[in-house]
Formats: sequence, structure tokens, C-alpha cells
Amino acid sequence: MDVRALVFDVFGTVVDWRSGVAAEVTRLLGPGVDAGAFADAWRGHYLPSMDRVRRGKRPWTGLDGLHRASLDELLDEFGVPATPEDVRVELVHAWHRLDPWPDSVEGLQRLRSRFVVATLSNGNVSLLVDMARHGGLPWDTVLSAELFGHYKPDAEVYDGAARLLDVVPGQVLMVAAHLDDLAAARGRGMRTAYVHRPDEKGPGTAIAESDPAADVSVGSLVELAERLAC
Amino acid sequence: MDVRALVFDVFGTVVDWRSGVAAEVTRLLGPGVDAGAFADAWRGHYLPSMDRVRRGKRPWTGLDGLHRASLDELLDEFGVPATPEDVRVELVHAWHRLDPWPDSVEGLQRLRSRFVVATLSNGNVSLLVDMARHGGLPWDTVLSAELFGHYKPDAEVYDGAARLLDVVPGQVLMVAAHLDDLAAARGRGMRTAYVHRPDEKGPGTAIAESDPAADVSVGSLVELAERLAC
Repeated sequence: MDVRALVFDVFGTVVDWRSGVAAEVTRLLGPGVDAGAFADAWRGHYLPSMDRVRRGKRPWTGLDGLHRASLDELLDEFGVPATPEDVRVELVHAWHRLDPWPDSVEGLQRLRSRFVVATLSNGNVSLLVDMARHGGLPWDTVLSAELFGHYKPDAEVYDGAARLLDVVPGQVLMVAAHLDDLAAARGRGMRTAYVHRPDEKGPGTAIAESDPAADVSVGSLVELAERLAC
Repeated sequence: MDVRALVFDVFGTVVDWRSGVAAEVTRLLGPGVDAGAFADAWRGHYLPSMDRVRRGKRPWTGLDGLHRASLDELLDEFGVPATPEDVRVELVHAWHRLDPWPDSVEGLQRLRSRFVVATLSNGNVSLLVDMARHGGLPWDTVLSAELFGHYKPDAEVYDGAARLLDVVPGQVLMVAAHLDDLAAARGRGMRTAYVHRPDEKGPGTAIAESDPAADVSVGSLVELAERLAC
């Protein structure tokens, strides 16, 4: 492989969204709300809300805006419709303060020694910047769906990342814990690495151990660094 | 000031373009070419070539592309028209490998402890990423004219930076060694900091010691960190 740059999905691949969101739900809404169920339901709105943007049913809206709209619905559904505005704002920002998986920072630091490392996430730019500062994620730069006005898995996101990094798609390795993201990246000519994150969706959820179509499947970003001789 | 983020002009403000380009000219074209004059002439093409893009006379072209077009003219003018393709490519990449001024890395590290720090440069994204890796510049992210399809001092660049960082313009401090860049940033509502870089344009060139219209004028990024209590 003639890889020059690694681009990373972030939610679930680099950071643990479920534990982080659930902890903030408990802190801000109290023990009366089932925090794990709330986090799962919030994440459950993710794909449908982006799909409305992708199909042109809704004008471009950054992920913070989508998170806020689905939060307002969920607070009603979970029986806490009187949640004040400042708490809603802080809940949306829970997604800016997610912790990395234990291997993420070391893995990224090692990978960065040989390759350009960047996000390629549906999170908006300010979210990704806040998250990197919170978790010490050593990105060379932040690439986001927001820069292209399209959400993954739209082709514009993968094509735009290669263009901005000034490499051909085959020189980019897309790293993700999600089969559909990797399939879309391959469809645009990128190389792919699957990361197995068995705990992403909480206990008892089946997650594929590997992606037979990917160039490499690993259990952590440290293992990816080892496989790429970093 | 309620400043949340600092955005930096790069060429001349954070890195020493003239010495870096001149050294590469000497290395790649030999002692027969006046390297300082060549660097000055190359930089002299910078504003006119961007202005053609800004006025719609030329479709969007990244800075690498503008540098290459002006390089081809200059190699003829300086009497080295037979310079081979691989040397031309490497000369364009000299702008990716410029060294920081001696205070830049320490200043940025200190400023980053309190503020988001990002480029806001006419350099293309891959140039700014390469330069940060070369010089150890600790950006939270790279913001570039390329993301907006407009060159500074077009309003779209300043407005776009605030939008991507999710702050109002008055929460952004634009840092630059150039009065026109700061004036344009103020015109879009940003706060401004002038950095005096007396050596940017080589010996004997008059450079303003301060900008009376700026919120602060300093002699280095370390001094800026001190002034902002970092």
C-alpha cells in the first residue's frame, strides 16, 4: 500500500460515545432517566436525521443542530419536557466532551509519526476541535462533513478529503468501526481499516469482529500502528 | 475581550518564508541564481495572482497552483528555463517546509492552553498540514482560504472561520504581521493582534512597528501569550 494519510471516523471508532453521553445524561437529568436507553435513543436519531439532509428534505444542518432537534423530542419521550434551555445546551455539548477509547491517543501518536492523521467525521468542526482538546487527540487537522456540505456516506466527503490532503484516494486509509463507512470509502477508491469496538453500543450488542473486504482489521489503534510499522 | 479562538496568518507571521524559500532556491538552482531576489520576486507574484482569482479572472486555484504558475515565469526571467519538472515540483514544496520564527512554537503552545488556535491562511490545506508537521506547530485545526473558495482579504474567509469555530466574530482574535489582513478582519467584527516581524522581507525593508488600530501589538508570539495571560 502507498498510503500517505489516515482519516478516521470518530464516534465509536476513536471515542466512546455511549458511556460519555450516558454519564452526562445522569449528571444533568438525574437518576430518574435511564441514561443508557437515552444515549441509545439519541444515537438512534443520528442516521435518520442525517438522511433527511442527505435526501434534500432538510437544508444543511450541522451535527450539533441535528443533536439538538432530536434531544428536544427525546426529552418529551423520556418524560422530562421541562428541562431548561441551559441544560439542553450542555447536553448537546456532551458530544464535544467524549472520552477516547483507552488505546486511541497512543495509537494516533504512533500513526502520526509516519502518516498524516485527520478526522473524517460527520461531527461539525467545532465539535471535533473541542473533542480533540478534551481528549488529547493529536490530529494534524480536522476534516468534517461540514466542510463539504454532505454527510457520510455521500461520495463528496471521501472525495473532498483526498482533494484537501492533495493525494489520490488510493493513498488514503479510511479507519472506522462501521462496515458501511468503509464500504463507501472503498467505493471512492480509498484503502480501508476496520477497528473492532465490541463495546460501542453497550452490552449484548453483536458487532462484527472483522471486515473481510477491508485491507486490515484490528482490535485497537495501537494494533493498527503495529500493523503499519509505526 | 471575550476571546475564545485565535486564528493566525502564517506566511511571515508564524514562519519565515523568505529565508526558507531562498535556501531551497540555492540548494536546487545553484549559486548562479540570486536566491534572495528570487524569493522576493516569487512572493511579489503572490498578491497579483490571488487578485486574479478574487476578481473572477481565474477559476479557483489553490496556492500551490498559483506558486507553480509564477515559478514557471520566474525560472525564465532568472535565466534557468531548462529547470526540470522534478525540481519545479520540489521548489513549489519549499513553501510546505518553511521554518517557524524562533518564538512561534513556544508562543502557540502557551496560547493553546487557553484558546483554540488555528491557521487562517491563504495557503492550501495540504501545505499547512505539511508545514505544521515540519515545524511542530501545534494547531487545533487548519483553516484555509481553500475551504471557502476565497482568498483573504475576502470577507468569506473571516466569516467562514468564525462559523466553523461556532463563535461570533468578536470572539475571534486574528493574529497577523500584515496591516491589511488585520483591517479586513476588523471589518468583519474580529479582534486583532499585530505581530512585528522586522525580518520578514529581508534587510532594509521598513515594517510598521505596531498597528494603532489593533487591540494589541507585540514583538513575538511569546509576548502575545504573556499579554493574554497564557
